[in-house]
Amino acid sequence: MRTNSSRRRFLQQLSLLSGGLATASFAHAVPGIDQPRSAHSENVEGVSPRPINAGYMGGFRAPKIDRVRICMIGVGERGFPHTAQLSVIEGVEIVGICDVHQDLANRAAEYVHKKTGHLPAAYCNGEQDYLRMIKDMRPDAVIISTPWEWHAPMAIDAMNNGAHAFVEVPLALTIKELWNIIDTSERTRKHCMMMENVNYGRDELLFLNMVRQGIIGELLHGEAAYIHELRMQMKSENRGCGSWRNYHYAARNGNLYPTHGLGPVAQYMNIARKEDLFSRIVSFGSPAKGRAAYAKANFPEGHKWNELEYVCGDINTSIIKTNLGRTILVQWDETSPRPYSRSNLIQGTLGTLAGYPEPMVAGEKLGDGNYHKWLKGRDELAPIYEKYDHPLYKRLGDLAVKMGGHGGMDFIMLSRIVECLRNGEPLDQNVYEGAFWSAVGPLSEKSVAENGMPQLFPDFTRGDWKTTEPLSIIQ
Amino acid sequence: MRTNSSRRRFLQQLSLLSGGLATASFAHAVPGIDQPRSAHSENVEGVSPRPINAGYMGGFRAPKIDRVRICMIGVGERGFPHTAQLSVIEGVEIVGICDVHQDLANRAAEYVHKKTGHLPAAYCNGEQDYLRMIKDMRPDAVIISTPWEWHAPMAIDAMNNGAHAFVEVPLALTIKELWNIIDTSERTRKHCMMMENVNYGRDELLFLNMVRQGIIGELLHGEAAYIHELRMQMKSENRGCGSWRNYHYAARNGNLYPTHGLGPVAQYMNIARKEDLFSRIVSFGSPAKGRAAYAKANFPEGHKWNELEYVCGDINTSIIKTNLGRTILVQWDETSPRPYSRSNLIQGTLGTLAGYPEPMVAGEKLGDGNYHKWLKGRDELAPIYEKYDHPLYKRLGDLAVKMGGHGGMDFIMLSRIVECLRNGEPLDQNVYEGAFWSAVGPLSEKSVAENGMPQLFPDFTRGDWKTTEPLSIIQ
Repeated sequence: MRTNSSRRRFLQQLSLLSGGLATASFAHAVPGIDQPRSAHSENVEGVSPRPINAGYMGGFRAPKIDRVRICMIGVGERGFPHTAQLSVIEGVEIVGICDVHQDLANRAAEYVHKKTGHLPAAYCNGEQDYLRMIKDMRPDAVIISTPWEWHAPMAIDAMNNGAHAFVEVPLALTIKELWNIIDTSERTRKHCMMMENVNYGRDELLFLNMVRQGIIGELLHGEAAYIHELRMQMKSENRGCGSWRNYHYAARNGNLYPTHGLGPVAQYMNIARKEDLFSRIVSFGSPAKGRAAYAKANFPEGHKWNELEYVCGDINTSIIKTNLGRTILVQWDETSPRPYSRSNLIQGTLGTLAGYPEPMVAGEKLGDGNYHKWLKGRDELAPIYEKYDHPLYKRLGDLAVKMGGHGGMDFIMLSRIVECLRNGEPLDQNVYEGAFWSAVGPLSEKSVAENGMPQLFPDFTRGDWKTTEPLSIIQ
Repeated sequence: MRTNSSRRRFLQQLSLLSGGLATASFAHAVPGIDQPRSAHSENVEGVSPRPINAGYMGGFRAPKIDRVRICMIGVGERGFPHTAQLSVIEGVEIVGICDVHQDLANRAAEYVHKKTGHLPAAYCNGEQDYLRMIKDMRPDAVIISTPWEWHAPMAIDAMNNGAHAFVEVPLALTIKELWNIIDTSERTRKHCMMMENVNYGRDELLFLNMVRQGIIGELLHGEAAYIHELRMQMKSENRGCGSWRNYHYAARNGNLYPTHGLGPVAQYMNIARKEDLFSRIVSFGSPAKGRAAYAKANFPEGHKWNELEYVCGDINTSIIKTNLGRTILVQWDETSPRPYSRSNLIQGTLGTLAGYPEPMVAGEKLGDGNYHKWLKGRDELAPIYEKYDHPLYKRLGDLAVKMGGHGGMDFIMLSRIVECLRNGEPLDQNVYEGAFWSAVGPLSEKSVAENGMPQLFPDFTRGDWKTTEPLSIIQ
């Protein structure tokens, strides 16, 4: 039942991929030659005005919530760890848990009960049961950790029913969905944050702090990647990512998962926050070889993974151009046998900070100023961490590492979400940032389909990004 | 005198950059949407047929030359080391030396005299004197190590006067010049090799050997860079690269120096050799900040370096798409303060080889097969070198390292050039390879000028690349 229905919904979503862009209310994505070089206007061209009953959400402060009542949608491989961490964060009450798998919902509810003494209500009556949960429980916030194609509809339903929405990456799959999310957030005055946990990694916070202090001068260029061999997910044949991500590889060709590498780089550059904006993107995919080969090697003839035609290039390489003319290289590969990397490179006029997994820094203001050599390794980096570790990491890092979750970044992120909701502060990632970072998905697909043609990012803020303060260095 | 004349010639060349592409005899570089996805035809569309008196030069064997009589044009920072190395290679006689600077010509001539007992004739009577040298000396080969804008005219003059032409990188500055070189080579039946020394680096040869043995499976993607901070060249105010390269930064915006990283990757992929071809390229430059800042910090107000407007993006990022759908990332930065890199990454379905300066390899067929971890460092790589060092490196490497010249690669390259000429063998790099690699310069400029529009590579082979054997593993 679930699989069929889920697959139907997925196919409905995919139809938006081809048809949705053509009718979306933003400028033609096919630029002419010799167009004006001033990029400050192109992103708003063709964007329809904001409806009268809606308000810009950059810097939005929601009313303070003393005790944040949360519902969880999806408590599988990603949602269960979120549940576990939230259940020990002060000021949180997990009031409802929904999953299409009864055993997963029970596991999460029991965990919360054990940790807090409160047993959340469990909802397991099919794919639409999350809506009943939200209407029953009237939570302050909903955490959505479901397959990609469910992110947008669930976030929109949550906001329409009075809850702030917190959504796993990517925020949505199409430009049309992203506009629907923004329009809903602006109309309902509810937060919708895409939870990019990597922005809370120690090195990403370190680099943000260094960039803000001018250590590498004026920013010129960034590099973001998600290179993470995940073919083994295909062995999850009925549950888990293998059971739903694999269909995406057979239906789409682009950078399907851009935000982990891109989120931090975008915040270094203050994208959609007063300073700069994504302007356009070009994208190419490599041949698609790895998924079919893996399926053939690991599953019998006639197995569903051997019946799909995998069209998504094994490695996608894209370049974003910003309004200020900066460039960002964005790469994605979940298929090829090579070591993990998020790149995480930020280059300025005075130096360059780079690298996950291995941080390396070089610049005129670093070490002895010999920028021909990377500073790296524990000893050379110790004084860098000593001097530039982000205050937020200093405050929460020890506890976060103990709590786990991708080296602590999950815990810092969830703690910040709760903190902001309780204090009525703007979130660290607003709905427009999630939209811009996620838009790389559909725009790269379109560029790949058009053999490298540049695609414009719509200005999801309708010009208002110039009023939104850069993310401050949170203490 | 020289400077003014050189500057005039440079400006003449630049006029070709804007005007030349529009009239060049290849397909419109502005593709429509929804064009056919089969890329096998697009590169020859609009290319005029080969003249009747000309022949394809892929795999060309010139008559054997027992003793190779060579003239040197330009014996400055690059040409003098070439002269020194050639003077000790067997079967070479350096018969003429030309430079606009008398002292440089004398230094080189005296060096050759001391090493060989033969004093080459020196030609120093202005910029055109190289032509008098070629007509006087009738050399078998000419080595051209002059400013970029002189490469094409000198190579063409050399071939037209009966000499094989060996040219420093890049081969030429415009598509029109590249066609002129190819037409001249095909009509005169003279080699014209762009001397890409990096293809003879130990690790590049190692990777070529590994790729040919199928260690990383089917090739999907490559990465090539020339990231080398060279701002200090500006301190050569009247002679040396600072005196002429700097004008390029003020007149052009693209990847002005693409071949060092790209040559090896292209040969891994057998570009223009039976298997694959560069199809199209997209390119973006970052803001241009570093040159102006450096000039301001290091030269007085009113100095010529402070009078230029530097328009070339500090870092250029481009993506090439090949006929087989492979992707190649190409980057260039000679301005920003960051450590040297040539990237040199080649990714296949079974693994990835990467890295200059630090080689790293990972793949299913490497080490214990754990491709989640790079093998790197002396100890981990020792068995890799042991097993896969290229036979050419094994034969010439020890001597090459002793002879110097970028760690030995120059000596291996020059030795191979002489060896091929003496044996009447095809050169390791044919004129089309030099043209394809160099075409990234003007095509990236055009893409940058058109805000990322894809540009087609013309098929310099007029379809004949399908008949040219891949470069073999030279013993």
